[in-house]
This record gives sequence, C-alpha cells and structure tokens, in this order.
Amino acid sequence: MRRGLELAALGPVVGDHARVGAVILSPDGDVLAEGWHKGAGTPHAEVDAMAKVDPAQLRGATAVVTLEPCNHTGRTGPCAVALIEAGVARVVYAIDDPGADVHGGADRLRAAGVDVVSGVLADEAEAFLERWLLSVRLGRPWVTVKWASSLDGRTAAADGTSKWITGAAARQHVHEQRAAHDAILVGTGTVLADDPSLTARGDAGELLADQPLAVVLGDRAVPDDAAVRRHPRGLVTLPGHDLAASLAALRGHGVHSVFVEGGPTVASALIAAGLVDEYLVYVAPVLLGGPRVALDDLGVGSMSERRRLDVLSTTSLGPDLLVRARPQRTDTTQPQTQQQHDAAPGFGDDGPTNDRSTP
Amino acid sequence: MRRGLELAALGPVVGDHARVGAVILSPDGDVLAEGWHKGAGTPHAEVDAMAKVDPAQLRGATAVVTLEPCNHTGRTGPCAVALIEAGVARVVYAIDDPGADVHGGADRLRAAGVDVVSGVLADEAEAFLERWLLSVRLGRPWVTVKWASSLDGRTAAADGTSKWITGAAARQHVHEQRAAHDAILVGTGTVLADDPSLTARGDAGELLADQPLAVVLGDRAVPDDAAVRRHPRGLVTLPGHDLAASLAALRGHGVHSVFVEGGPTVASALIAAGLVDEYLVYVAPVLLGGPRVALDDLGVGSMSERRRLDVLSTTSLGPDLLVRARPQRTDTTQPQTQQQHDAAPGFGDDGPTNDRSTP
Ligand SMILES: NC(=O)c1ccc[n+]([C@@H]2O[C@H](COP(=O)([O-])OP(=O)(O)OC[C@H]3O[C@@H](n4cnc5c(N)ncnc54)[C@H](OP(=O)(O)O)[C@@H]3O)[C@@H](O)[C@H]2O)c1
Ligand SMILES: NC(=O)c1ccc[n+]([C@@H]2O[C@H](COP(=O)([O-])OP(=O)(O)OC[C@H]3O[C@@H](n4cnc5c(N)ncnc54)[C@H](OP(=O)(O)O)[C@@H]3O)[C@@H](O)[C@H]2O)c1
Repeated sequence: MRRGLELAALGPVVGDHARVGAVILSPDGDVLAEGWHKGAGTPHAEVDAMAKVDPAQLRGATAVVTLEPCNHTGRTGPCAVALIEAGVARVVYAIDDPGADVHGGADRLRAAGVDVVSGVLADEAEAFLERWLLSVRLGRPWVTVKWASSLDGRTAAADGTSKWITGAAARQHVHEQRAAHDAILVGTGTVLADDPSLTARGDAGELLADQPLAVVLGDRAVPDDAAVRRHPRGLVTLPGHDLAASLAALRGHGVHSVFVEGGPTVASALIAAGLVDEYLVYVAPVLLGGPRVALDDLGVGSMSERRRLDVLSTTSLGPDLLVRARPQRTDTTQPQTQQQHDAAPGFGDDGPTNDRSTP
Repeated sequence: MRRGLELAALGPVVGDHARVGAVILSPDGDVLAEGWHKGAGTPHAEVDAMAKVDPAQLRGATAVVTLEPCNHTGRTGPCAVALIEAGVARVVYAIDDPGADVHGGADRLRAAGVDVVSGVLADEAEAFLERWLLSVRLGRPWVTVKWASSLDGRTAAADGTSKWITGAAARQHVHEQRAAHDAILVGTGTVLADDPSLTARGDAGELLADQPLAVVLGDRAVPDDAAVRRHPRGLVTLPGHDLAASLAALRGHGVHSVFVEGGPTVASALIAAGLVDEYLVYVAPVLLGGPRVALDDLGVGSMSERRRLDVLSTTSLGPDLLVRARPQRTDTTQPQTQQQHDAAPGFGDDGPTNDRSTP
C-alpha cells in the first residue's frame, strides 16, 4: 500500500481526478505490475497496472489500490468489473470512494466472490487525497486563502503600494502554490485595482507548466483590456456574492482546489462563511501601519468568537516567514470541514525553534 | 575577561547601574579575587574584588574589568584612584565608560603610570551592556515595545475584549520581561480602558521580586481609584505628548530600560518617532478581523518608507509565536540608535525550521 501511495504521487497534482496508485501481486506476493492514474480521461490506476500483466497471471492475483475501485461507467468503465472479469481473487484498498455515483465498487467485488480488505493505511491515503476527498464530499473545492502582510498585518502602505512586501523566495513559493491548485480566485476589487495576470510563473517570469484557471467573483465587469482576459487557462467570472454557490459552480469546471489571493473583502467573506480549509500567510519583517489591513471584518464580535487555527508549520522563506494553518478542528464556532491531521494546535512545537538571539 | 562577564551577569538586571564584573590577577596570572557590581549604592566591581585581597598582594597585580574604571566621585568614589592607590600595575578592560561625567578613568590610570589595555572582548561586553550603554549615550532609556496580536494583527475583538488572546506561556513570558525592565509604560488610553495594574507577576498571580516602575503618558488624569495608583514601585505620570522629553525625564528616575505595553496610539507614536530599540510581538494562532489593530498610523505613506526589521528570533511559547525584532540597522528611514548585532535580517535562517507539515 505504501508503494501504491508512492505510485499515486506520480500522477498530476491538479486536474479533475483523484491521484491513485495500484500494485498487482501474484498469489505468492511477487509484484507483477504497478500502475497509477495519469489524469482525467486516462485509465484508472488498477486498470493501468492490469494492462501490464499477462491476463493468465491475473487469475488469483491480488490488487492493492489506494482508493476503492470505482463502480461507474465514466470515461473509463467500472474498475470493479474489470477486476472481476480478469479473475483477480483479492482486492486490498485504503479508503472508500466518496463519490455517491461511484460508490459500491467494494460491494460489487464482494458480490462476485472477490476477497475485499479496506482501510489499509487509510489515514495516509486520506491525508494524501484530502483536497479531492473534501471536494467530492462537500460538493465544493478545497479553499486555500493566502495573504502577504507586514508583521502588523498590513498588505500595503497607505497609498496602496504593495510591491516587494515579501522577498523573492516568498513570491516564488506563491507561484508554486498557484500551480498546485486548480484555480486562482480574486474579487473584482483586486482586478480593478491591480490588473493582475493570475498566472503561475517561474523565476524569470516564464509561465509554469501547470496553470490554474482564473476566477473573478463579483458583479462589476472585468474590463475588456484586463490582463486576466489573456489568461492561458481562461477566465471564469462568477457574478453575485453567494460564495457557496460560486464555489459549487467551480466544480462544474473540474475545479477541486482554489487558491484565494484576495483582496480583503473576498478573503474575509470566505473566512466569515467558514469556507476556508487552509491558510498560507506570508509575514514580512516590516511594519507599515495605516488602513490597508489583510483582513477586514470576520464577524468576530467578542474574543469567545475568535477563529482558532491549528498551525501546521512556520517556515523561513528568505527574510520572510510562511505560516501554514488550518481552522482548528475542535473549534465549534465554524463548520467542521477539513480532515483530521496530526499537527499540534498553534505555533507550539517540541522541536527546535528558529532562535538567533544575541547572547 | 570572559570570567569578568560571567561575574557581571551576577548583578541585578534592573536598576540605575551598569552590570560590571572584575577579576584580580597576581603578576603570575593566578586569580586573587573576583567581584561584581551588586546595584546602585554598592561598591563597583573592581573595588568589590580588591576588598577581598590582602593589600600587599595588590601591589603589581592586574585588574581585569568589563567596563573602564570610573573617574568620578559618586556614591562610591573614583575606581581609578582606588586602583592607583592600591598599586595595581595593569588594568585590562573591555569597553570605554560612555558617561561624559565619568570618562577619563583610563587616562587617569595611564597618567599615574598604570599599564592600560582596552577593547578585550569589547563586542561581547557591548552586547551584554547594550541597554545601559544606549541609555547613557542617548540620554533616554532603551525602549522595548510589546504587543500581543492575532495572526491578522488584531489585539482585541470588535467589542474590545482581549483576554486570553495569547496563552499562559506567552503571558508568563510577558511578566518576566516586565521584571527585566526598569519601567513599564502605557498611555492614558490604556489606563482608562483597562485599569491595568502594570505589575510583574508569577504563575499564581504573586508579585515578582523585581517590579518595574509604572509610567503613564498623556494629559488625561489617572483616576484616584486606578489599580496603577497602588503599584508597589510607584507611579510616574508624564503629561504631554513629547515622547523624547518624557523618555529623557525617566532617566531622572533611574530608568535605563522601558517596556511599552500600549496601546496602539503610544506604541505607534514611538515607532513613528524612531524611538524603539526592540520589538516583542506575541502572535496567537487565531483570526479576529475588525477595528482593533495593534498599531495604527506609523507615518508610512508608501512601501519605500516601510519600517524594516531584523528578526532576532522566533520562538514557540505554548500555542503562540514570539517574534523578537529590532529596527534594521541598515534602514536609513529611521535613526540609527541600536547596537550592531549579528542576526541576519528578517525571519530567514539556515537552521531548522519549525515544520510540522502533514505528509
Ligand atoms: N497584497 C496583497 O496580497 C493583495 C492581494 C489582493 C488584493 N490586494 C489589494 O486589495 C485591494 C482590493 O480589495 P477588495 O477587498 O476590494 O478586493 P476583492 O476582495 O478582490 O474584491 C471585492 C469584491 O468582491 C466581490 N464579491 C464577491 N463575493 C463577495 C462577497 N460575498 N462579499 C463581498 N464582496 C464579494 C464584490 O464585487 P462587486 O462589488 O463587483 O460585486 C466586491 O466588491 C486592492 O487595493 C489590492 O491591491 C492586495
Ligand atoms: N491587547 C493588548 O496588548 C493591549 C495593550 C494595551 C492597550 N490595549 C487596548 O488599547 C486601547 C487603548 O488604546 P489607546 O491607543 O487609546 O491607548 P494608549 O496608547 O495607551 O493611550 C493613548 C494616549 O496616550 C497619550 N499620549 C502620550 N503621548 C502621546 C503621543 N505622542 N501621541 C499620542 N498620544 C499620546 C494620549 O493621552 P491624552 O489624550 O490623555 O493626552 C493618548 O490619548 C484599549 O482598548 C486597550 O484595551 C490593548
């Protein structure tokens, strides 16, 4: 199963598919073949692996798969049927397929007399697929909200200038995160103020291979000459202020994960609505003061309503600090959407701290 | 000299004195005695050490002192004269005494035929005494500004509630910092809003041995029944808004270091005036949004005017993060007051980061 997860990781990070890996074993436990899912429209992992084995060897074999074999005829046909027809004797998988329309692969296998074992390395497979699983379970994409601010929580100086608030390493990290999400989302306010291109770019400004879809929320028109209209993956505009509906609509575009880059209005509205799964906060070692805060109103009237976070990591990026955090799973003030994970709450850690005190 | 610095560290952290250590060596290099300064009104380190040696042995001895022996008759008489009269042959010290009224100890020793060597471990002695040195050189106390905020830079919820924004470990750290400064300073706004006691307390709420003087800035009256009027070290009120004058006035109270605990108005005004030497920012893993920002206007109109910081350390305190920083020494937008120190700018570090990412 561990090898299956390694194989799964070979598949593309973004796109309208789950990353799944599979290993075919002989009755003696020898590895006959390995397979993985290479993206929407291509064979599922178990079918990819079976295709590499002499059909005679498949009789009585064991298939180890990171996700329950599917039971629907999509672009590829039900994998459960393929396994049954090939005469596979045993199927071991990690986690149940959360898709209502595809569930039932295990039942179908069992009904055909196949020995089925589930739950092997389930926590690891769950963590590996968390964005896709959440997206399928909740019917909306995984939402990562990013902002870059000064130590006092400002994203720009009083006159609106924000260039170079963080350094090159942090900016490059942001571009990699863009490439690792299916879509990048802002409100019309950001488009009208900054005319951003919303592309994922490399060191030299070149476009990265994976480009997120550009998404703009709000009623105001995106100008005809806006940079985002020339986006390589295309632009989706979603009028109105119903965030849940807008996110759900993105599923129709094959979007399982969204990277939200502001501005404060849209980011704050998503947080207030409990629609955020992860935060990436880039903190620069500067003070700015003034009116340009990263977030505005979150609907927190009193301290008892504060939005608690679990800090997953704090990482130095050049002179800046990246804080990766999630809504606290024990926080009852917000909907429980995200997966369980093992990080301790807060910044606390028993490990070494980044301490460079002078003596 | 290293032993001298160890001895100096035995003296009290706060109070109207420099922490100095001294070692008396025989002509053969044997340690005859050690001494250190135990606080204002007590013998200076070299005199403390000499008192432990048979006067006959002092003839031809070497005195190693972390600070230039003084040349003034204060509460203790000039140390330079005491060394000369004792017949000490050689004086080795780390840094020159910055006090204009006391300078000249080395000259006086040399004029009397004593062999004088200065600058030994000067950087370490300078770092060790930096608060006191800055206070004597600039005629104002060392200023540490502290705030506790959410990850989005708020110190309180919309209704003003701020209790428990940070956890027990961070709060205890704050109390230790209060005890390590000569005074704790707020504006009238904080007194009128929160009625704080401004004392340094332990885990169980008990008063710590070292108490900072309580200082309140501003024209509005401190109410007769304010908690700060019952402060164990006493209260100093400084009317007006001339921060430089108020800080200078604190020197007259024997104050070499000030711990500023807000509110936003006083903290921001000190930053804008370039009067801050160190920042202690306690960041809690929560989001609050709303109007209660830790700092308000800093006079930063455009990004080019941003206040750059050198981050000395980031340390986990329970669930919270403590960022210790100083105005960047290469930042030409603010007066250069603080000592050189060796920390790299920003949060960046080659050392381990506090990374607890899920796989
Ligand atoms: N430094 C950074 O990291 C960064 C990043 C992004 C933006 N910014 C700055 O942020 C500023 C723009 O701020 P902004 O807050 O106006 O931008 P924004 O959040 O991108 O856009 C706000 C707009 O979003 C639309 N919207 C969609 N759903 C909404 C909802 N549920 N609630 C409220 N509005 C919703 C509304 O558009 P309609 O009114 O058209 O309906 C609203 O006016 C610019 O100055 C920009 O430079 C900084
Ligand atoms: N969570 C925390 O860490 C924390 C800590 C402290 C305070 N707070 C909150 O902060 C709020 C109080 O804020 P605040 O900003 O009013 O308090 P503040 O900064 O303590 O007091 C402001 C007052 O300081 C005086 N002042 C002296 N020199 C000044 C100068 N150069 N410029 C401007 N004012 C000067 C003025 O008093 P006069 O008008 O009397 O002349 C001014 O009104 C409270 O709600 C409190 O709860 C939070």
